[in-house]
Amino acid sequence: MQMYDLIQKTRRKESLSDAEIRYIVNGFTQGEIPDYMMSAWLMAVCCQGLTTDETVTLTLAMRDSGECLDLSDIGAITVDKHSTGGIGDKTTLLIAPIVASCGGFVPKMSGRGLGFTGGTIDKLESISGFSVERPVPEFIRQVREIGCAVISQSGNLTPADKKIYALRNLTATVDSIPLICSSIMSKKLALGADCILLDVKYGNGAFMKTPESASELAQAMVNVGNLAGKTCRAVITDMNAPLGHAVGNALEVQEVIRILQRKEENALSELALELSAQMLELSGKGDLQTCRKLTSEALHSGKALEKFADMIEAQGGDASVTEHPERLPKSNRKMAFKAEASGYIAEIQSEQIGLACLELGAGKTASRPEIDYGAGVVFRHDIGDYVPAGEVLGMIYGASDALCEQAEQRLRRAVRISESKSEPIPLIHGIIG
Amino acid sequence: MQMYDLIQKTRRKESLSDAEIRYIVNGFTQGEIPDYMMSAWLMAVCCQGLTTDETVTLTLAMRDSGECLDLSDIGAITVDKHSTGGIGDKTTLLIAPIVASCGGFVPKMSGRGLGFTGGTIDKLESISGFSVERPVPEFIRQVREIGCAVISQSGNLTPADKKIYALRNLTATVDSIPLICSSIMSKKLALGADCILLDVKYGNGAFMKTPESASELAQAMVNVGNLAGKTCRAVITDMNAPLGHAVGNALEVQEVIRILQRKEENALSELALELSAQMLELSGKGDLQTCRKLTSEALHSGKALEKFADMIEAQGGDASVTEHPERLPKSNRKMAFKAEASGYIAEIQSEQIGLACLELGAGKTASRPEIDYGAGVVFRHDIGDYVPAGEVLGMIYGASDALCEQAEQRLRRAVRISESKSEPIPLIHGIIG
Repeated sequence: MQMYDLIQKTRRKESLSDAEIRYIVNGFTQGEIPDYMMSAWLMAVCCQGLTTDETVTLTLAMRDSGECLDLSDIGAITVDKHSTGGIGDKTTLLIAPIVASCGGFVPKMSGRGLGFTGGTIDKLESISGFSVERPVPEFIRQVREIGCAVISQSGNLTPADKKIYALRNLTATVDSIPLICSSIMSKKLALGADCILLDVKYGNGAFMKTPESASELAQAMVNVGNLAGKTCRAVITDMNAPLGHAVGNALEVQEVIRILQRKEENALSELALELSAQMLELSGKGDLQTCRKLTSEALHSGKALEKFADMIEAQGGDASVTEHPERLPKSNRKMAFKAEASGYIAEIQSEQIGLACLELGAGKTASRPEIDYGAGVVFRHDIGDYVPAGEVLGMIYGASDALCEQAEQRLRRAVRISESKSEPIPLIHGIIG
Repeated sequence: MQMYDLIQKTRRKESLSDAEIRYIVNGFTQGEIPDYMMSAWLMAVCCQGLTTDETVTLTLAMRDSGECLDLSDIGAITVDKHSTGGIGDKTTLLIAPIVASCGGFVPKMSGRGLGFTGGTIDKLESISGFSVERPVPEFIRQVREIGCAVISQSGNLTPADKKIYALRNLTATVDSIPLICSSIMSKKLALGADCILLDVKYGNGAFMKTPESASELAQAMVNVGNLAGKTCRAVITDMNAPLGHAVGNALEVQEVIRILQRKEENALSELALELSAQMLELSGKGDLQTCRKLTSEALHSGKALEKFADMIEAQGGDASVTEHPERLPKSNRKMAFKAEASGYIAEIQSEQIGLACLELGAGKTASRPEIDYGAGVVFRHDIGDYVPAGEVLGMIYGASDALCEQAEQRLRRAVRISESKSEPIPLIHGIIG
């Protein structure tokens, strides 16, 4: 088998056999296929696509490139969730305790921030003492005992994905449905939960810009999950504005706690409850109506907040923040940003909000490898709200006035105020699987 | 400027600016852009194409990556020819002396065999003593004095092309019109002849399989040539059967000499006369009718044969072969291959003929880096000829009976005999420019 011929085939939209796809994945992972051949193949995939069968084989080959976890010691049906990512997306921090407090089991491996999008792992690390690196047996034990654990990728899971992703990230071959699908699903399959709920986002703050492209990706992932023997479903959700009000690590944890304390209700809490109900239904905890009742009760009774405290404690963190969120890290300076004109908030460019927070210190950059956990932005209004000129739209948190001022300029451009009120975009666009 | 963004642009079919294309070519040539990024960009070009403007800029940037010759010392209008390559294509060996003997000036740099296609340089080297490596000033002097010279690529011409071609050859990014066009035309422009005639071949032995794709490539090259200030024309010609009767280095030189001796006339001599006339017309030697008369006279008077002898002598070769072609190298063994059935020769799969000759030793392979200059095949019949079963279709020349037998098997499969006579394919399909 020659890599040259396989590149040629994909370029000509001829299907590769299972053996050919496994040859590519294993050859590249083991360093036998050089980067320059792999990047040519990846670009051919981006331009010409892969069939469903090819995508399934690619995903399974990537799954099989490393360790696959055995979660049978949990002794129950497990359910995993994956979000394709967005600005202010902290649903995992709500879903894990909500589902666990309703009797579900959530073994979750999450990622760190990348570019202008935050990462669940960075958010959790803003909690003093919280450890995201746990040996696999301890991870499994925690899920069995308290129902949830959120750790960073552990063990030698999907080395093929790590190597392929690094190359895609350098060669403009990131946005391709079969490549995104295989990257996400190989990790989900290697983790090994029985059920997988996918939150596929679309909009100005998401990878997929339209509901159609998000649905296409969702369908590809559900197909792969089902064909790999998993119970799999995807929810297509809106990411045309940051999810919830806070963007920035400790600020997002604070928002999560306020929601679990029933002090705040917003699009984020609504979405988290719905996704949790879907996960419980997938786990066989009853029909969707029953599961919605369960999650709502878990939130309102305070059981979910308790579960969040249990999880923090189990992972070595300071659980007192669930009662005293003011103990979370704070940035040195804060500054209000205001409406420039009277009118309805028509648009919040999420990508710009993400960039503003990155510049404030909420994410790592090449020149500043340290995260300022307290940095970020908290909005006071949502799309569709009427605001008079000069109204405080939100607060900016950063290490210095200069940083806050820089962010303020970007934020002003990112919020569009209109004379007419626009139709609200539904939070959930559709469900696949 | 970031290579990542430029790859992304080409992938999205967004045009690159002149500065962006020059950044890619110079960055890659100077080793600043790594292979894995370049191969991703090349694949994006293969899949998404480039505009005419982008192709022109790419070609000029590649031309400017190294030395450009100054041919003004020749003191006359110069005319270059390029064939996109095929099996048995030895037109350069005829055209150079024909055009020169009619008062034209042909400075020609040619290539070596690649894969299953032969190279003009290898063919010339089958003549004892013939030197293809000449310093540029000597090359120019020879063209001025005798009207033609054929050497291998000399000096530091188009290093970008060398580096890009090597990568394309490893990454299945060879067959792309803008990439083929920029590779060919950058070399032609760096050589610097005033007029360029392109022989763009299509058919089962050519890179381009259909007249339509050959015309598309031809149009791209003529556009680039014209926009770079050259007089440029392309002739679309048939390569559905080997050109002429001989395939293999010394065997092809022998065929050339037989034609120049007026002992043989075939599609090869017809094409060589027509291309030569076109080159003379481009050089301003009169209208096409006049030029056709000139080339025909040059052939029939023996002046072209004399000119070929002059060129061989000027380049240190044994010019006596033009009177005694039997002095050219011969292979040890020969073997006839015969018609399996009675009928009309309907098809000769040129690519298979090329492969048979490569296996016989007419070209280099990884395991056998020496050329057997006498090896190859000589056909006795053309497409459309009626042959009875058992008729000798041609002779096979090789170093051993085993090699000849292996070739015989391939050749038998490559020649299709049919009960009905098929329409002959015209040698010249069209002219562009």
